[in-house]
Amino acid sequence: MGSATIFFWLQLPNVTKNYRTALTITGIVTLIATYHYIRIFNSWSEAFTVASKDGGDYTVQLTGAPFNDGYRYVDWLLTVPLLLIELILVMKLPQAETVSLSWKLGLASALMVALGYPGEIQEDLSVRWFWWCLSMIPFCYVVFTLAVGLAEATSKQPSPAAASLASAARYLTVLSWCTYPFVYMVKSVGLAGPAATMYEQVGYSLADVLAKAVFGVLIWAIAAEKSAVEESGKLLPN
Amino acid sequence: MGSATIFFWLQLPNVTKNYRTALTITGIVTLIATYHYIRIFNSWSEAFTVASKDGGDYTVQLTGAPFNDGYRYVDWLLTVPLLLIELILVMKLPQAETVSLSWKLGLASALMVALGYPGEIQEDLSVRWFWWCLSMIPFCYVVFTLAVGLAEATSKQPSPAAASLASAARYLTVLSWCTYPFVYMVKSVGLAGPAATMYEQVGYSLADVLAKAVFGVLIWAIAAEKSAVEESGKLLPN
Repeated sequence: MGSATIFFWLQLPNVTKNYRTALTITGIVTLIATYHYIRIFNSWSEAFTVASKDGGDYTVQLTGAPFNDGYRYVDWLLTVPLLLIELILVMKLPQAETVSLSWKLGLASALMVALGYPGEIQEDLSVRWFWWCLSMIPFCYVVFTLAVGLAEATSKQPSPAAASLASAARYLTVLSWCTYPFVYMVKSVGLAGPAATMYEQVGYSLADVLAKAVFGVLIWAIAAEKSAVEESGKLLPN
Repeated sequence: MGSATIFFWLQLPNVTKNYRTALTITGIVTLIATYHYIRIFNSWSEAFTVASKDGGDYTVQLTGAPFNDGYRYVDWLLTVPLLLIELILVMKLPQAETVSLSWKLGLASALMVALGYPGEIQEDLSVRWFWWCLSMIPFCYVVFTLAVGLAEATSKQPSPAAASLASAARYLTVLSWCTYPFVYMVKSVGLAGPAATMYEQVGYSLADVLAKAVFGVLIWAIAAEKSAVEESGKLLPN
């Protein structure tokens, strides 16, 4: 995540002014994730000890300190609206549409994260499902808007290469996003204990790398392609 | 806060020279806040432990170390005058007015913070109210000056978009500022103990995000809009 940030910001001079705000935000998303993954790492290390007695097998023990999943949700609360905004900005829609889409998707996605958290910290399975269902309402709104609404914007990109990259970014968003509700369900279907926590953390981490770093590389590729088109003067009207 | 700093400073080349000082200060305000929030986080972690015995429920315990609210007041002493100055600078008033407003609002707001601190660290409710009342005198002066005095400056902005952004920044200041005296009152009305401390910290933190990071984004938007107007040569006389 931290390396991705550095890559995006070092590429800023290589794109035209039109895409610098998108690329700046792309790097901020992975920076915020870097910070929270360090917090998650430390919290994980404080919650579990791995040790071997007398040179025997290593065993994992609870230390008594909690593993704080709150860092993940604070991360998402900040990064999920921002990564939707970076996608909207790189599409270069008319300004009024950019502002209105940013507000709608930004607020809906923050609401989605906020509604997920009360269920995540619950042991009671029915309460977990209740918050999962509530959170899925803004989730479906965002994913539907991206899958359908932005299809039109994709077709208006200035070159076939830009259009196919924009389309890839749109589908990567939908795919990586759909991972999260399934990972959330790991504990809701009755799995518990250290193994469930481990599967959940591996799942969320993989989805985060796709949704932030890999997605960011696509945003950069779109910005670079559109900058090349603009600089060669082949810009089609949009 | 840290991400906001990086965003503002990476945007420096994208605005004209007229607004770079305002944008630099905007980033300094959130940088100073980042530093103090790390101190506050560490002080909080040292004051409380969360642990579960034998896998039972987690409980919060006082460690005996104090939670030091002084970091917040040192932060405000530095950032509050600076964020008023960034607002004045981005308005681009005549130079004499810029200097005189910066001194008046800067000193009044520093006095406001300094008068609030002796009450904040008091348990005695009547002493708390005494300092609250004293602090409200410079508070009212600053909020009144912003709400009324800068209305005129707002109407002189070079484009309708810049005027509406400047007006939004002015009202966000008034709104976020008015949060602080109410949060201060949480303990003055007799609430005490860990719950009161928690509400107070959540309240101040939310107000800080609005007054520094969200406010900064508005300052950047004003600077970007006015730069675009200047660069397109459509600058109206002001």
